[in-house]
Amino acid sequence: MSIRIGILGYGNLGRGVESAIRQNEDMELAAVFTRRAPESVSLRTPGIPVVNVDEIGAWKDKIDVLILCGGSATDLPVQTPIYAKDFNVINSFDTHARIPEHFAAVDAAAKEGGKAGLISCGWDPGMFSLLRMISTACLPDGKNYTFWGRGVSQGHSDAVRRIEGVVDARQYTIPVEDAVARVRAGEQPEFVTREMHTREVFVVAEEGADKARIEKEIKEMPNYFADYDTTVHFISMDEMKRDHAGLPHGGFVIRSGRTGFENEHTEIIEYNLKLDSNPEFTSSVIIAYARAVARMAAEGKTGCMTVFDVPPAYLSPLSGEELRAHLL
Amino acid sequence: MSIRIGILGYGNLGRGVESAIRQNEDMELAAVFTRRAPESVSLRTPGIPVVNVDEIGAWKDKIDVLILCGGSATDLPVQTPIYAKDFNVINSFDTHARIPEHFAAVDAAAKEGGKAGLISCGWDPGMFSLLRMISTACLPDGKNYTFWGRGVSQGHSDAVRRIEGVVDARQYTIPVEDAVARVRAGEQPEFVTREMHTREVFVVAEEGADKARIEKEIKEMPNYFADYDTTVHFISMDEMKRDHAGLPHGGFVIRSGRTGFENEHTEIIEYNLKLDSNPEFTSSVIIAYARAVARMAAEGKTGCMTVFDVPPAYLSPLSGEELRAHLL
Repeated sequence: MSIRIGILGYGNLGRGVESAIRQNEDMELAAVFTRRAPESVSLRTPGIPVVNVDEIGAWKDKIDVLILCGGSATDLPVQTPIYAKDFNVINSFDTHARIPEHFAAVDAAAKEGGKAGLISCGWDPGMFSLLRMISTACLPDGKNYTFWGRGVSQGHSDAVRRIEGVVDARQYTIPVEDAVARVRAGEQPEFVTREMHTREVFVVAEEGADKARIEKEIKEMPNYFADYDTTVHFISMDEMKRDHAGLPHGGFVIRSGRTGFENEHTEIIEYNLKLDSNPEFTSSVIIAYARAVARMAAEGKTGCMTVFDVPPAYLSPLSGEELRAHLL
Repeated sequence: MSIRIGILGYGNLGRGVESAIRQNEDMELAAVFTRRAPESVSLRTPGIPVVNVDEIGAWKDKIDVLILCGGSATDLPVQTPIYAKDFNVINSFDTHARIPEHFAAVDAAAKEGGKAGLISCGWDPGMFSLLRMISTACLPDGKNYTFWGRGVSQGHSDAVRRIEGVVDARQYTIPVEDAVARVRAGEQPEFVTREMHTREVFVVAEEGADKARIEKEIKEMPNYFADYDTTVHFISMDEMKRDHAGLPHGGFVIRSGRTGFENEHTEIIEYNLKLDSNPEFTSSVIIAYARAVARMAAEGKTGCMTVFDVPPAYLSPLSGEELRAHLL
């Protein structure tokens, strides 16, 4: 029997989940839930109901895992504990500092409802977390480095769009090559923020806007840009559409460790992602973990989990025998 | 209370385990078991008993996990099921084709004795398997590539040493750069063996030996060299000792996958190891999994497992709360 998936929120991530389901024969899309008028939402998959989220209660027994595809700032912290009472849930909550409280809220709700939940799934948090954790356990004497990019940061792009005179903007995060080279060579440097990443911004400005002022506002924006070396390019809307339509991203987690009786040997573990589509890869990871959540819930697991808690075999449609014969 | 580790077999791997234990505060080395005369074995760690393996029965209640550090050809297939009846065990069994039967034998023995076992741990099989498996689950539409090196293959070095007229030999496995570049660029080529790796051999020959004959025998050796482009260098014993004393290795597993409604996006996952010491890294992974085996056994788990079956959190000495706060 297929694993029946519900999607809540049909943006980039929701569409990514929809496309990922089509690559997994043991999965089916049961329904998409939305806060918008359902008739205004048209899916890529024919015949799938679009349902107003107010009516989600009727779907309790028709969905094995509900995937919450909203944002981490306001949607997920509120929605996830609510729906975790009635559904097995999974989300991509990525506000690192608030993970402990979010975990506690989802854990309590899921246990109350006898359901299983998994939070902070995707690639960071998600696969990057998993690799940081496993690599740290394998090389306890060492340091972790996480580099992001080259790729589009949607949060930073949005921040630039809020500046007066900006029509559209795209922000790329770029690792500093020299820093990467030093880490890969086995040095264990201490970096300040500016030494690990640079930022490059492409801006479409309103006609007649003060470009010097816009550039200054970007470069001095606290939290987002002030701690980085930032380059700003003004381009036309045609150039924006032609050259910056995609959402590529990626990055790498490096564990640099030492082994041996005198710590004389350096061992470098690197996990590297190069993604044409950030939301589609995130969705693909979420779908694999949704399989695990469905199975673990069927075995009686309740409460909240993270990627740290899932035996990897649960991610695969293959049996233990098949995995050992072909992938070990 | 510390996790008490026993080591069976004190070669490169056993010494690696001994050094890895020193990096993990929750572990202690309880004893080293050997088939040799115990007085002929001197450990790096003072005060630890060296015991003839015939007396291992007396240690049943004094060891939490027994790490079997013998070879895959003859030692591990025989030893592991024997000791799995009385001890939680872990090994690095790496004969891929025989994993299913070995798993079955260890599983039966461990269940009979109420113990837990984990086989085929290290980096390949081990971490490479884990990454192949997880990456395949996350990107079902794609291909896996495993490249090894540049590094010393001990099996190939041994094979060369068995040739008449060879005093010593060291064989390096080297990925073909062009093949790696194509895979990293998102192509999904089909390779024959020769296209993925080359082999480089350094040989110390007996004085007066027929070097042309030795080179020919190496290059034509079935299974080991015949399917590869191999370069042979004759060097002096001094050069061998000066330039080839270490056991560096490494390699990388790449999953090249496609996502999107039209499979229009390429996503590349690469897990890359660069190791100064192959046996020490292998041991470091084994020690992390030994922690997991000890914990899972304490919770009542019996039978055989692989890296696919272990929830990653069990590898770390940190609590779930600490992991979520600092590594997610």
